[in-house]
Amino acid sequence: MDEQGLKNILQQVKRGDIDIDQAIHQMKYADIYCLGHTNIDNQRKLRQGYCEVIFGQGKTEQQLKEIAEYYIKNEDNLLITRLDANKAEKLLDLHPKSEYHSLAKLFTIIFNPAENRGLGKITVVSAGTSDQPVAQEAFLVAKFLGHRVGLIQDIGVAGLHRITRYLEELNSSKVLIVVAGMEGALASVIGGLVARPIIAVPTSVGYGANFQGLSALLSMLNSCAAGVCTVNIDNGFGAAMVAALINSPCD
Amino acid sequence: MDEQGLKNILQQVKRGDIDIDQAIHQMKYADIYCLGHTNIDNQRKLRQGYCEVIFGQGKTEQQLKEIAEYYIKNEDNLLITRLDANKAEKLLDLHPKSEYHSLAKLFTIIFNPAENRGLGKITVVSAGTSDQPVAQEAFLVAKFLGHRVGLIQDIGVAGLHRITRYLEELNSSKVLIVVAGMEGALASVIGGLVARPIIAVPTSVGYGANFQGLSALLSMLNSCAAGVCTVNIDNGFGAAMVAALINSPCD
Amino acid sequence: MDEQGLKNILQQVKRGDIDIDQAIHQMKYADIYCLGHTNIDNQRKLRQGYCEVIFGQGKTEQQLKEIAEYYIKNEDNLLITRLDANKAEKLLDLHPKSEYHSLAKLFTIIFNPAENRGLGKITVVSAGTSDQPVAQEAFLVAKFLGHRVGLIQDIGVAGLHRITRYLEELNSSKVLIVVAGMEGALASVIGGLVARPIIAVPTSVGYGANFQGLSALLSMLNSCAAGVCTVNIDNGFGAAMVAALINSPCD
Amino acid sequence: MDEQGLKNILQQVKRGDIDIDQAIHQMKYADIYCLGHTNIDNQRKLRQGYCEVIFGQGKTEQQLKEIAEYYIKNEDNLLITRLDANKAEKLLDLHPKSEYHSLAKLFTIIFNPAENRGLGKITVVSAGTSDQPVAQEAFLVAKFLGHRVGLIQDIGVAGLHRITRYLEELNSSKVLIVVAGMEGALASVIGGLVARPIIAVPTSVGYGANFQGLSALLSMLNSCAAGVCTVNIDNGFGAAMVAALINSPCD
Amino acid sequence: MDEQGLKNILQQVKRGDIDIDQAIHQMKYADIYCLGHTNIDNQRKLRQGYCEVIFGQGKTEQQLKEIAEYYIKNEDNLLITRLDANKAEKLLDLHPKSEYHSLAKLFTIIFNPAENRGLGKITVVSAGTSDQPVAQEAFLVAKFLGHRVGLIQDIGVAGLHRITRYLEELNSSKVLIVVAGMEGALASVIGGLVARPIIAVPTSVGYGANFQGLSALLSMLNSCAAGVCTVNIDNGFGAAMVAALINSPCD
Amino acid sequence: MDEQGLKNILQQVKRGDIDIDQAIHQMKYADIYCLGHTNIDNQRKLRQGYCEVIFGQGKTEQQLKEIAEYYIKNEDNLLITRLDANKAEKLLDLHPKSEYHSLAKLFTIIFNPAENRGLGKITVVSAGTSDQPVAQEAFLVAKFLGHRVGLIQDIGVAGLHRITRYLEELNSSKVLIVVAGMEGALASVIGGLVARPIIAVPTSVGYGANFQGLSALLSMLNSCAAGVCTVNIDNGFGAAMVAALINSPCD
Amino acid sequence: MDEQGLKNILQQVKRGDIDIDQAIHQMKYADIYCLGHTNIDNQRKLRQGYCEVIFGQGKTEQQLKEIAEYYIKNEDNLLITRLDANKAEKLLDLHPKSEYHSLAKLFTIIFNPAENRGLGKITVVSAGTSDQPVAQEAFLVAKFLGHRVGLIQDIGVAGLHRITRYLEELNSSKVLIVVAGMEGALASVIGGLVARPIIAVPTSVGYGANFQGLSALLSMLNSCAAGVCTVNIDNGFGAAMVAALINSPCD
Amino acid sequence: MDEQGLKNILQQVKRGDIDIDQAIHQMKYADIYCLGHTNIDNQRKLRQGYCEVIFGQGKTEQQLKEIAEYYIKNEDNLLITRLDANKAEKLLDLHPKSEYHSLAKLFTIIFNPAENRGLGKITVVSAGTSDQPVAQEAFLVAKFLGHRVGLIQDIGVAGLHRITRYLEELNSSKVLIVVAGMEGALASVIGGLVARPIIAVPTSVGYGANFQGLSALLSMLNSCAAGVCTVNIDNGFGAAMVAALINSPCD
Repeated sequence: MDEQGLKNILQQVKRGDIDIDQAIHQMKYADIYCLGHTNIDNQRKLRQGYCEVIFGQGKTEQQLKEIAEYYIKNEDNLLITRLDANKAEKLLDLHPKSEYHSLAKLFTIIFNPAENRGLGKITVVSAGTSDQPVAQEAFLVAKFLGHRVGLIQDIGVAGLHRITRYLEELNSSKVLIVVAGMEGALASVIGGLVARPIIAVPTSVGYGANFQGLSALLSMLNSCAAGVCTVNIDNGFGAAMVAALINSPCD
Repeated sequence: MDEQGLKNILQQVKRGDIDIDQAIHQMKYADIYCLGHTNIDNQRKLRQGYCEVIFGQGKTEQQLKEIAEYYIKNEDNLLITRLDANKAEKLLDLHPKSEYHSLAKLFTIIFNPAENRGLGKITVVSAGTSDQPVAQEAFLVAKFLGHRVGLIQDIGVAGLHRITRYLEELNSSKVLIVVAGMEGALASVIGGLVARPIIAVPTSVGYGANFQGLSALLSMLNSCAAGVCTVNIDNGFGAAMVAALINSPCD
Repeated sequence: MDEQGLKNILQQVKRGDIDIDQAIHQMKYADIYCLGHTNIDNQRKLRQGYCEVIFGQGKTEQQLKEIAEYYIKNEDNLLITRLDANKAEKLLDLHPKSEYHSLAKLFTIIFNPAENRGLGKITVVSAGTSDQPVAQEAFLVAKFLGHRVGLIQDIGVAGLHRITRYLEELNSSKVLIVVAGMEGALASVIGGLVARPIIAVPTSVGYGANFQGLSALLSMLNSCAAGVCTVNIDNGFGAAMVAALINSPCD
Repeated sequence: MDEQGLKNILQQVKRGDIDIDQAIHQMKYADIYCLGHTNIDNQRKLRQGYCEVIFGQGKTEQQLKEIAEYYIKNEDNLLITRLDANKAEKLLDLHPKSEYHSLAKLFTIIFNPAENRGLGKITVVSAGTSDQPVAQEAFLVAKFLGHRVGLIQDIGVAGLHRITRYLEELNSSKVLIVVAGMEGALASVIGGLVARPIIAVPTSVGYGANFQGLSALLSMLNSCAAGVCTVNIDNGFGAAMVAALINSPCD
Repeated sequence: MDEQGLKNILQQVKRGDIDIDQAIHQMKYADIYCLGHTNIDNQRKLRQGYCEVIFGQGKTEQQLKEIAEYYIKNEDNLLITRLDANKAEKLLDLHPKSEYHSLAKLFTIIFNPAENRGLGKITVVSAGTSDQPVAQEAFLVAKFLGHRVGLIQDIGVAGLHRITRYLEELNSSKVLIVVAGMEGALASVIGGLVARPIIAVPTSVGYGANFQGLSALLSMLNSCAAGVCTVNIDNGFGAAMVAALINSPCD
Repeated sequence: MDEQGLKNILQQVKRGDIDIDQAIHQMKYADIYCLGHTNIDNQRKLRQGYCEVIFGQGKTEQQLKEIAEYYIKNEDNLLITRLDANKAEKLLDLHPKSEYHSLAKLFTIIFNPAENRGLGKITVVSAGTSDQPVAQEAFLVAKFLGHRVGLIQDIGVAGLHRITRYLEELNSSKVLIVVAGMEGALASVIGGLVARPIIAVPTSVGYGANFQGLSALLSMLNSCAAGVCTVNIDNGFGAAMVAALINSPCD
Repeated sequence: MDEQGLKNILQQVKRGDIDIDQAIHQMKYADIYCLGHTNIDNQRKLRQGYCEVIFGQGKTEQQLKEIAEYYIKNEDNLLITRLDANKAEKLLDLHPKSEYHSLAKLFTIIFNPAENRGLGKITVVSAGTSDQPVAQEAFLVAKFLGHRVGLIQDIGVAGLHRITRYLEELNSSKVLIVVAGMEGALASVIGGLVARPIIAVPTSVGYGANFQGLSALLSMLNSCAAGVCTVNIDNGFGAAMVAALINSPCD
Repeated sequence: MDEQGLKNILQQVKRGDIDIDQAIHQMKYADIYCLGHTNIDNQRKLRQGYCEVIFGQGKTEQQLKEIAEYYIKNEDNLLITRLDANKAEKLLDLHPKSEYHSLAKLFTIIFNPAENRGLGKITVVSAGTSDQPVAQEAFLVAKFLGHRVGLIQDIGVAGLHRITRYLEELNSSKVLIVVAGMEGALASVIGGLVARPIIAVPTSVGYGANFQGLSALLSMLNSCAAGVCTVNIDNGFGAAMVAALINSPCD
């Protein structure tokens, strides 16, 4: 409930239109729709600037179906992350606008494409071909949220000249998302070359002492290049959310 | 060396003012000043938007003195981080504009205060009184870099009402720095309440299974609130640098 | 063997009804029933207040069948935890009162439903839909043990208002079980809002640097809110056992 | 602010005694006293059942002095934990009722001793002489909060008969706090012998692969005895807080 | 090659029966039989007191078949550990004396059963039914090596009386192998009750913060009961080897 | 209390010499002497074969003094481990037979030197000069307990020939204690050369990725040489206790 | 692009054959061939001495097929590492010179076998049969790169005499690759016997506290034998690359 | 003892000049000089190519003095690593050729400076001023061993242009030692630019989630640039030893 809603209720109390118990009830139950297993958070758009995104992993098909139907009924844009292909298949029939991006494991139903709302451009950079699923997730989520997004792939530090040719493009963005596995050095290298905030996304790509992404994660947290901050391992979605907020005007 | 500098050299070549070997020498050595132990990176301001900041920890008094004298000679603003009080004492005499902030362990000599350059305000929030040194470091560095900065202290999640009263202030900032130790829940809680990018700084405040900040670090990396990214444990400086870049116009 | 049983034996010794060797034998073998692979601990109910619960994971079908048959023969209530669906199927035929709760992976045969025995109510709270299996395990075990139990689901800290509406219900319970994955901040947030002991259950829900629940576990152990204690990752059963003991009168 | 306070304000609004802006202001600022560095949380007693306890570690002498003076002025009972002896010395002069418990590192000023408020007795058990500081912290905090507390020391599992002789005392308590370092087996052993909730406190006592308490911590989290929950390493204070809440009536 | 064999060669050199190059060749190649992928170590029995045991995990069927055939040709007792059931099936046909113990994953062909060679008895104790595979491995290997072995199962610390009834049997053994998962307290408890060396075997039984056996491993390494030493997680085989050496006369 | 003591009490009950309450009291309080902070475990010698050893670390001077005086009064041999030099100094005056071994940090008062009680010899082997404190602790404790002990120092695997010259001595021992830091390979190498049980003691000697002994600890736990078991990092005392039990006859 | 290529372009500019924009374009795009998902790095051979090797893991069949076809078109030698058998099968049809080494998971198409280019010989040594896949990867990659390579298998430290017989062969190599799992002691042992640089490759062979190769990794990093350096767990490929560079002349 | 020495002894046996026992004695004791606490390994120079280096850490002053005197008596070059300044002071008086390098903590007495023996040059590169102590250790040890060594300091990846200007120097070396803390990206970046083997040395420089060098260590082990191998954290000495072996001719 936003501040205006609160004022409305207080004014109703003042005018005697509703009594105090009714006021308390309205304050409490206006903003969540309860599906039993899941409370859909209608208020998040007001509070957070973006509507709620559904975390698909660990939810049953039935739960996901009910959530999707609720969004369809309200013609609200729906984004489900970390959705396995076999579960996605069951949801695709629910509405003709359904789409499934298998590499990024994203499911969307877009009723009203978001308008361009950013201060500038978000550019997603990935170190290697194996980092693509995470880079794609970041790219698609940022686009879903209504931002201009660029994507530069496979420019790891083992070949620095591959990076330097993109410097202009990097410098003309408002914010960068850098996706890298193994030793994750790409974040530091780009951080040393451009004056833009960098959201570093460590990936679990690698083996042995990479310990499922720990190596890249620690690398990025300890970056000697100022201007780098880090999200969870393989969390392309989270990086896009932060980048979207950075790229949004202050209003 | 910026693009203009490069053009100047090429024109001197064209005019025959210098020969090709001289040109190469100038290109190579113009932008770093070598103190033997330390290469001062004059070019960083052009490349990164901010001048180089000196990491004080692990440097000897003699090394720090030489670095400071170089800055003083050029009347460049100097910022040294992680400087122990006893080393700071030795540097304070070098120039009347020297200042030492003992809580944040920062040393500065400011010749030309930075002008306000931000899109909006940076607000630093800390969870507990014990997190102050890190919050102060973030606050002072952001100010040094020429940004408007607010500071809200001691509003940990053990008393949620302490947070909610600052919601307006938080929402009117361009970017938030949230400093918290122990379980670091403050980042998630604020992340769920405001639509601003959050730079989370885990601190090593706590004991036992906090493992020198690991607990807060993992908490922040795994935040269920979108919009949170994380820097290294106790790294108030790094958070300020990211926040400064976020708060800077795209040009 | 309880104190009374011991006194009986000692009195029999005193009266000369049994000799010393018989006394020792009785003390030793009265209270365990041996199936070869498994010693069923009849005495636990007296010693611990609750009958033994069978840990299903890692036991073979044959072992489980023999254990179940022993309980059925004695018409004792049986609870098996962590039982895979395919093993459960084999046990369901043993008795018409058999039930299997697939989400919580619990198998029960209830001959005599436990009477209400608590000081108050136990309330189970979970942060997200994906935490349901653990929350269900806690809920069902507490019920099996004869307690009044409430269940509030999907009220994670990303939407604080979802929590605050349940404050009254939380405050009217004797003890709370808080189930959360990712950064596990829910335990701290509720701990800051209510004056009830909280059994925090970290779940392995999440990915990357959550390290199979380590993130939520450390969060909960380091909670800045007093009143929080923690059980093992995903251990809904253990939380219910502790809560049941807390909710039991001192006698 | 408690529910009654909220009703009062809403009634004032209804009666027109205050306008809406005044109502909002009152709601916001009634319950915290701000010392600049520290917000003292007056409301905690209402919300949590106990007044706020000050975490001494990491606070400066000046900060602690100001906090103490605020409590003295209001004649509120003050408890500071983790206070080094040299800082404590400076505070002892502030008021004749000041006391410092050096083993437990606790500082108190008690104006109104808490009345006995528990359902039963809290018993603190420690495994070895080296675990005493943590056991003392738990013991003294529970007493400060107005509970009957027992203390049994040095009954580690290397001599089981030392445990069994205290069984009656353990069983006649409402809740147990078990403090142990090294392998922390004491929690499981007692958990297997008595039907009381156990708050297990791992200590950092030991060396080598005990990894500053990790060994005992994992032991306690993985206890095969149901009825055991765990707080942070060396956290005697936290254990006392949980035990106090468990031992309080539901009202 | 044993010392006698070396003396023989040196005497042959002295007598001029062989020249120096032949001596060196004999020293080098007498004691290993090379299968290309595997060097069978004929000398181990002399050097170590027991013949080489084959580690089955990670070897191909073909490799295992060739190794087995070599042993069969020489009528040497063969023991293969960690052998999956499907690989074992292929080897069972090689010789009528082949046996496969599926719970312990051991494969044996015994041509000459080892004679009783121990100082006393080895007793294997396990905490729970789920620890049986490891306990069985220890039991069967010790028997294969020619020792008297006892086996006591399912006497975990959650029911201490289950342990105390076996004290006499434990005290009459030369050495104990204690197998336990979860918090592994059984080793400490038995170590506090009997004056026998204890080989503690942590198992990976448990979940969550047991971290695949780390919890029990650390517990056992930090045992407050003197007399406990530890082998690798789930390493029943290694425990049996150590116990066999302890139980062997000094000669 | 041993079995005979128990029989005595039962016979007194049978004869009516004592009543049942007296019997229970005698059973409970015969075998521990309580110093308030410390329960001295008189029964341990009967139960464990050796008297209790005092863990010096973390005990105050006053506590240690009271414990020592109790032993002196009873003329029982006293062994205190992990005792800092400055605390030792205070205890040396208590009795003329006091001795302090500064390298091993052991304090002893020996009234009745233990007689030789072993099956054979215990040999302590250390890898490097820096491992001496731990090797000395093992050597001196084993001697204190009445065993023949040998000591071979500085024969690390970086020079294998240093090891091979001691093979005869190693093979003629009943049990070996192998002390090594860094990568701890010495245990595996000796384990591959001799047919004796090996108690491996990892030390914290080394730096960087040795992580205070973790490297040697894991090495020893994973030894490919059968016959190796491991105690805690730097735990020379524990190794000596296990070796003493191994070297004791079965009786 | 090598120095000659750069000169060519500059001369074309000088002659007016191309204008400056065309020159820049050629400089930028000559040395990478972009497949969309993958930038093939033609320049690596000049820069690094060896052509780029394709990391197969995590790439889709389609991506791999396009990469292979590009190499086939240019008749460049192709090496793909970490390729699963089922993906390899699809690539084998692309060209008659395709080969798949299933144990080492390597796929090659060799158009021009590399000539012998080394200073001496590279010798790969493995500790156990289970380490073969990694040893094979190292062996085959070194051969592919044009070096003389030897392979000695199954000479673990549990039988030291197996090692000593190969000393001459080891000493006559320029560089050794030592592959070992479990406790990885082989690297230290060989490092103590020969004066050659050793590339140690820890493998994930083992179980329990080997933690997927961590044990061998730490062992090798902490080797007390100078001359040992380490690559990632199971990284036979990386070891071969380092060995190849070591074995190459300085030019 | 080298092969020639062995042949000499065998020939003496053959000729009857010595008997077999004398032969065995000579083989065993020719090559170590025993100081009681320390066995000086005279043979290492033959076996390893370099004389033994003394690890100073953890040795007492008396032990170090005796070792130094033994070297002085034989006029052998002495190198002691990790020697604290206060211990070094005591050794400086032993001989006029003594030198102590305080930054690198190295102590040397050089009687016969090693001649230049390398294939090419060793170049040591460090990322930041704080990494100097480790870089100095590597530099000085390599020089002590008789190699040409270059040193390039303070060229971290936060300013890539600082690196590129040294490419020629890097490419003209036979082997590189790259010293870096924090995220250790310098090893990958240089590995991507030059075709030389790289010995990467992670340092413990940094704070927070660098975990005493773990971050840089994992980074280097997971380097995506082939040609990088790694030694222990802060192990400049070990890197120099490996580099010296790489730079030595095969003979």
